[in-house]
Amino acid sequence: MTFLDFAKTPPMGWNSWDCYGASVREEEVRDHALFMSKHLKPYGWEYIVIDIQWAEPKAKSTRYNQFFPLNMDEYSRLITAANRFPSSKQGQGFKALGEYIHQLGLKFGIHIMRGIPRQAVHQNTAIKGTDKRARDIAMNNICPWNSDMYGVNVDLPEGQLYYDSLMELYASWGVDFIKVDDIAYSRLYDDAHKKEIAAIRKAIDKTKRPIVLSLSPGPAQLKNGMFLQDHANMWRLTDDFWDHWDALYRMFDRAAEWVSYVRPGNWPDCDMLPLGHIGIRAVDGGGGDSWTRFTKDEQYLLMSLWTIFQSPLMYGGTLPDIDDFTLSLFTNEEVLDMYQTLTYRRQVYRDDNWIIWEGRSEKDEYISFFNVGESNLEIPRELSDRFVGMNREVRDLWGKKDIRLDEQVVNAHGAILIRK
Amino acid sequence: MTFLDFAKTPPMGWNSWDCYGASVREEEVRDHALFMSKHLKPYGWEYIVIDIQWAEPKAKSTRYNQFFPLNMDEYSRLITAANRFPSSKQGQGFKALGEYIHQLGLKFGIHIMRGIPRQAVHQNTAIKGTDKRARDIAMNNICPWNSDMYGVNVDLPEGQLYYDSLMELYASWGVDFIKVDDIAYSRLYDDAHKKEIAAIRKAIDKTKRPIVLSLSPGPAQLKNGMFLQDHANMWRLTDDFWDHWDALYRMFDRAAEWVSYVRPGNWPDCDMLPLGHIGIRAVDGGGGDSWTRFTKDEQYLLMSLWTIFQSPLMYGGTLPDIDDFTLSLFTNEEVLDMYQTLTYRRQVYRDDNWIIWEGRSEKDEYISFFNVGESNLEIPRELSDRFVGMNREVRDLWGKKDIRLDEQVVNAHGAILIRK
Amino acid sequence: MTFLDFAKTPPMGWNSWDCYGASVREEEVRDHALFMSKHLKPYGWEYIVIDIQWAEPKAKSTRYNQFFPLNMDEYSRLITAANRFPSSKQGQGFKALGEYIHQLGLKFGIHIMRGIPRQAVHQNTAIKGTDKRARDIAMNNICPWNSDMYGVNVDLPEGQLYYDSLMELYASWGVDFIKVDDIAYSRLYDDAHKKEIAAIRKAIDKTKRPIVLSLSPGPAQLKNGMFLQDHANMWRLTDDFWDHWDALYRMFDRAAEWVSYVRPGNWPDCDMLPLGHIGIRAVDGGGGDSWTRFTKDEQYLLMSLWTIFQSPLMYGGTLPDIDDFTLSLFTNEEVLDMYQTLTYRRQVYRDDNWIIWEGRSEKDEYISFFNVGESNLEIPRELSDRFVGMNREVRDLWGKKDIRLDEQVVNAHGAILIRK
Amino acid sequence: MTFLDFAKTPPMGWNSWDCYGASVREEEVRDHALFMSKHLKPYGWEYIVIDIQWAEPKAKSTRYNQFFPLNMDEYSRLITAANRFPSSKQGQGFKALGEYIHQLGLKFGIHIMRGIPRQAVHQNTAIKGTDKRARDIAMNNICPWNSDMYGVNVDLPEGQLYYDSLMELYASWGVDFIKVDDIAYSRLYDDAHKKEIAAIRKAIDKTKRPIVLSLSPGPAQLKNGMFLQDHANMWRLTDDFWDHWDALYRMFDRAAEWVSYVRPGNWPDCDMLPLGHIGIRAVDGGGGDSWTRFTKDEQYLLMSLWTIFQSPLMYGGTLPDIDDFTLSLFTNEEVLDMYQTLTYRRQVYRDDNWIIWEGRSEKDEYISFFNVGESNLEIPRELSDRFVGMNREVRDLWGKKDIRLDEQVVNAHGAILIRK
Repeated sequence: MTFLDFAKTPPMGWNSWDCYGASVREEEVRDHALFMSKHLKPYGWEYIVIDIQWAEPKAKSTRYNQFFPLNMDEYSRLITAANRFPSSKQGQGFKALGEYIHQLGLKFGIHIMRGIPRQAVHQNTAIKGTDKRARDIAMNNICPWNSDMYGVNVDLPEGQLYYDSLMELYASWGVDFIKVDDIAYSRLYDDAHKKEIAAIRKAIDKTKRPIVLSLSPGPAQLKNGMFLQDHANMWRLTDDFWDHWDALYRMFDRAAEWVSYVRPGNWPDCDMLPLGHIGIRAVDGGGGDSWTRFTKDEQYLLMSLWTIFQSPLMYGGTLPDIDDFTLSLFTNEEVLDMYQTLTYRRQVYRDDNWIIWEGRSEKDEYISFFNVGESNLEIPRELSDRFVGMNREVRDLWGKKDIRLDEQVVNAHGAILIRK
Repeated sequence: MTFLDFAKTPPMGWNSWDCYGASVREEEVRDHALFMSKHLKPYGWEYIVIDIQWAEPKAKSTRYNQFFPLNMDEYSRLITAANRFPSSKQGQGFKALGEYIHQLGLKFGIHIMRGIPRQAVHQNTAIKGTDKRARDIAMNNICPWNSDMYGVNVDLPEGQLYYDSLMELYASWGVDFIKVDDIAYSRLYDDAHKKEIAAIRKAIDKTKRPIVLSLSPGPAQLKNGMFLQDHANMWRLTDDFWDHWDALYRMFDRAAEWVSYVRPGNWPDCDMLPLGHIGIRAVDGGGGDSWTRFTKDEQYLLMSLWTIFQSPLMYGGTLPDIDDFTLSLFTNEEVLDMYQTLTYRRQVYRDDNWIIWEGRSEKDEYISFFNVGESNLEIPRELSDRFVGMNREVRDLWGKKDIRLDEQVVNAHGAILIRK
Repeated sequence: MTFLDFAKTPPMGWNSWDCYGASVREEEVRDHALFMSKHLKPYGWEYIVIDIQWAEPKAKSTRYNQFFPLNMDEYSRLITAANRFPSSKQGQGFKALGEYIHQLGLKFGIHIMRGIPRQAVHQNTAIKGTDKRARDIAMNNICPWNSDMYGVNVDLPEGQLYYDSLMELYASWGVDFIKVDDIAYSRLYDDAHKKEIAAIRKAIDKTKRPIVLSLSPGPAQLKNGMFLQDHANMWRLTDDFWDHWDALYRMFDRAAEWVSYVRPGNWPDCDMLPLGHIGIRAVDGGGGDSWTRFTKDEQYLLMSLWTIFQSPLMYGGTLPDIDDFTLSLFTNEEVLDMYQTLTYRRQVYRDDNWIIWEGRSEKDEYISFFNVGESNLEIPRELSDRFVGMNREVRDLWGKKDIRLDEQVVNAHGAILIRK
Repeated sequence: MTFLDFAKTPPMGWNSWDCYGASVREEEVRDHALFMSKHLKPYGWEYIVIDIQWAEPKAKSTRYNQFFPLNMDEYSRLITAANRFPSSKQGQGFKALGEYIHQLGLKFGIHIMRGIPRQAVHQNTAIKGTDKRARDIAMNNICPWNSDMYGVNVDLPEGQLYYDSLMELYASWGVDFIKVDDIAYSRLYDDAHKKEIAAIRKAIDKTKRPIVLSLSPGPAQLKNGMFLQDHANMWRLTDDFWDHWDALYRMFDRAAEWVSYVRPGNWPDCDMLPLGHIGIRAVDGGGGDSWTRFTKDEQYLLMSLWTIFQSPLMYGGTLPDIDDFTLSLFTNEEVLDMYQTLTYRRQVYRDDNWIIWEGRSEKDEYISFFNVGESNLEIPRELSDRFVGMNREVRDLWGKKDIRLDEQVVNAHGAILIRK
């Protein structure tokens, strides 16, 4: 068993960032877990992921309080802010919350930043298992958009020890999924922080716990494709993705470039789904209390691309008040059956109006026609003949009905996803 | 049947560039074909490829005569220089030479440059099948290192017609393999000439002849990986490769980056094998009348990488006077059996001294240990245990004998290739 | 006497490009010369410059006929297209037209492209003064936007001879000003073609005629500043400049960066003035038969920047039908007195709304306040006090009246130019 | 009076970096000041500059102790480490040392890093004159090669206040020269930190003390030339300069590019003179206890370039044990007379062997012939005739004798500096 077995199908879950920014609270997490266990678990959704700054007592939105003191244990490890997560009092961390989530039949994920807290370095606090201290293992490199951490010098055995101690702690909390940030790409340093990725891989492997490893932010670099396959379960293809057509349109390029790296255990990541009610305490994206700016057509298109490419599906909106339409996108058995069983997928055609992907599972073949133009269009006969065959009856997965492609119109920015 | 079927295993052959530059002559081609049919064909070698400037009567070496008149037919198509290829007299092109090669049981390949001859454009000669003329379809873009051609505007139907007329002619000559140059990457224009690649793909498909398409020069760009898979059988990963350790060492990066794009019909290309007697009328590489500067260890390493990565094998040295050692590299049945049957291959380890690749066929597993350091080294126990297993007997493919890896020394710049 | 003495004050004139593209005809040139001699000469305007492709018989607009045959003499030199310039019949070139312009008391300029005609190279025609031919001295490098020429290898003595023969011919025609294009910057080759600049400098010096040398296109590179000072009288700071606010606004950066290189004989060039009736047979800029899209405020701002920076002034619109407002911009004695006598000039302030330049001559001090914001604004008291002094009476050069700056409003995109 | 008047001639002095790295001690500074006052002051040398980390008690060499606590006052300002500078006890800073230096008739300089101490930010200490604290004004940007500081947000009035409080303190110590580091160029952020430069300019101006402002490190960017002229007295043209021919040779490019920006008060800076006994506790450069690796010829060449370009002269070696040769380079009245009186200077010629600069003062003309080739060479007659005149007697400034240039040999990597 290798880490590739930790995610044999692409991970599906909910992540707190899009709607709560850095500020999610325990009761909100519990509400989302409860909803998922009732309404989404049967369809394969299982991860509940708490995003950035759960150690920051004063976090309020997607804007960070710069240089603020974080909750930290005696070994320079960030621990849960008890004012926001009451079950973590007396230094128990996320243990109780993790158990709650497990009892619901779900899996529990957290976000961490690459590195060691800057406050640990300037206070020169201890590292578990060594006499060396924070100052000895820190590197003078930073994340450009968050002021919490310094890099760790993993060329030193004590740097590896630090990451080992982190993963040991999180494993003891029952963590099943870790999203490590400021690591898959760095604007400042122009590449992935590969040594720290390798150290985290080792540290997770030492825990013997099947913790899925997700790397952010993108754009991950193609030249690192094989390295990423060898070290992580998912990695981001772009910088943060929000609900804009331009960003969605550009995702077709990224998916085509990365499709050769999709395989069981390795799921290049198109980022979270900015759908439904995405703005509660967020400032990015639309900001404020807002719903997705994508049209319904664009949402079908997005879900068709994410599923036929087999990106992880991490929903960023709220669950308890989800609307029927958004829920229907996440609970279509025919689409999800394709999503979880594909053994091959690939862009097969592209012009200014149409992008076409095909996918194959052991038993079925799928085609998605994406209309990326600005008007509603009939699928050209030439394309339907070439990729589907003349005049055949096919299954429209979103419509859940059999159709013929003759005279089939696809709306602008929309898609049709079919089983042949 | 698609073009992927034209090269189900990686192409193997001989190419005239390394030893003759732009100046190879018919009798030399015939001599090489005869040798190949007798001594190499049983091992899978089959292509005889005439490289650049067979239309240039005065070509003498790897240095081009700039702006020189080329042999051209009434339709602005380059045709064979009869003074160098006597069988092509009366405008018959390579037909007779192709037949000779076919009669030997081999396949026949030629090199062309992207575009239309500049002399055609400045004389405004005709294009077959249209009233438009050369000037109407030319683009003001050039190859930076050769002055023969202008680009073709394939957004015009007549631009496509021109490429159609080219491929029609070459197919009539019996051509089985076309290496198109100045197209997979351009230093001046910073990308592949993708529109012309697509036009050439279409033009070949129209001939109904299974002509293998090879694109030069590199470095092809990873972002075009999927595009190249969809249009060509092979494409170059680097600029011209010569017999220097530095270039050989860098090839490990390129192979690792591109390995996801290897599949039947698509063979990312590490370039020709600059082995044996490579300098006859060449000026590049060592130049002059010279033999490869690679050591024997480096040659084993090179052949191990090319074969486990499944690069095409195109020999660049002379055949009639080939030495036993070089010949032994091309006629090792166990290595070639691996090469032609792998279904999976991948770099699995790398440090400053060791690079390790593994490969799998339906029935066997292979490992290659490359010593890229500067001293002879025993394979570390940790690595042999991890990738081969404790104390097992394995097959040394180059040595053609069973060995144990315990205390196995690999020379500096050398490799050992084993079947488990 | 050095070439710096050829242009002791910044050159002022008219250039045919903006209004006629590549297609100006002799009678149009004569009409413009006549108008200039009557109405502008007293203010210092003196150059009549025929822009690109006067050797192309079929030129019609700013779009070039690609790969078209050009008029050429026996020595591979382009000569005047007699159908467009009747006085040039029997190979006399521009001699008669130059004489006409000189008789009007004006100076005569022409445009040439860097290099040797491609048609000369492919026909391998003669070079004056040597047995070498066009093919021997051509380089395989091109202009990306025009298909007329190849570069010349001036490392060969015969390459220098070619440029010598060109300048000898043009000097014999009475040319006073040469604009050489595709030389000050190249998008394809990412730098100036410095060797050819040096060769042209030498060739001009050999003629003993004081021919002003102007280099295009921009953006010239700052690192070449000293080289350009040593070889040319003017060089372009940007790519072609048209009548858009964005381009005008960006010119402030370029002027500030280059101001250290302004000195008698060296006049970094903000490009032609796209004012008045600029579109006759042009396709660039607004295209068609059109007048400048700049507002009057923007025109004052433009003229204030060009004159206080001491850019050359080359008018691109038509003269015979010039309107009073445009004419007033070119005939303001007070502005032009400043322009021709400054010994120092410099940007002294910049914020989001205001850019301020100062200039000094032997006897006077000048300030220009540029309102680059989007609303009409009073000059802030703090700025007027700092750069002009409290409550002083100053001279408004465009308004030709004495004013106080108190409560002086400058319109959005406008400027006020004052003498202290 | 503006800051340009603070340095009417290029600053000359001694800086502790090359020989002591970050670790210079008070008695060493006093020794150097004493020596300078006795032996160099008559020649114009006057600045004694203490380089980086005088607030770091444990500094030992050119290698920084990462993340170490620094001496800091109640207002987040770094103050002198009293263990290394005993006269600074009881928080007096450099006041006493400054007085000592002033009494010797010299001027006193210090080095600071851009920004506010990271320890202040993580302890959230006070800022003088405001209720805001360190955390409120810090920016999440860093120096890549030193871990002491964060950037300051000078868009906030309190950010400006911080810099004001710094300059107020240093002015009270009697500081005459400040070298600000991590500000003229940043590898990480790819430009100068211009806002902080402007804030420091303002803060110095508020002190009313004529403190010379020097900006590091280079390479400063040419596009910022005018901005730097408007804000600083000197700025570095390259990254740290050490005693290697390659670096010295490259300085000719930088000097030629920047020469247009030399004027009284603005002295583009070729960096310290790595001459004499430069390694005491340094690790960079040759490291260890070492003398310059430049040959005598190279030292003449270096001094000729620095003086004719009018770079500041800041000696980096030790003074008390200086050797006669090195001392002779700093005490040549004829060279220094040129250096301090030039009103014009410029590279006038360059080929593979020779670079020639000329300079002019009100009364004299100077020429320097630099032999940048690899063999001793006679000055070509053509060059001496062109730049000096036929057969004239000239003054050899380094040789202090009248010579004729006929048959004058200049050694490889050497120079001859003459007055015409």
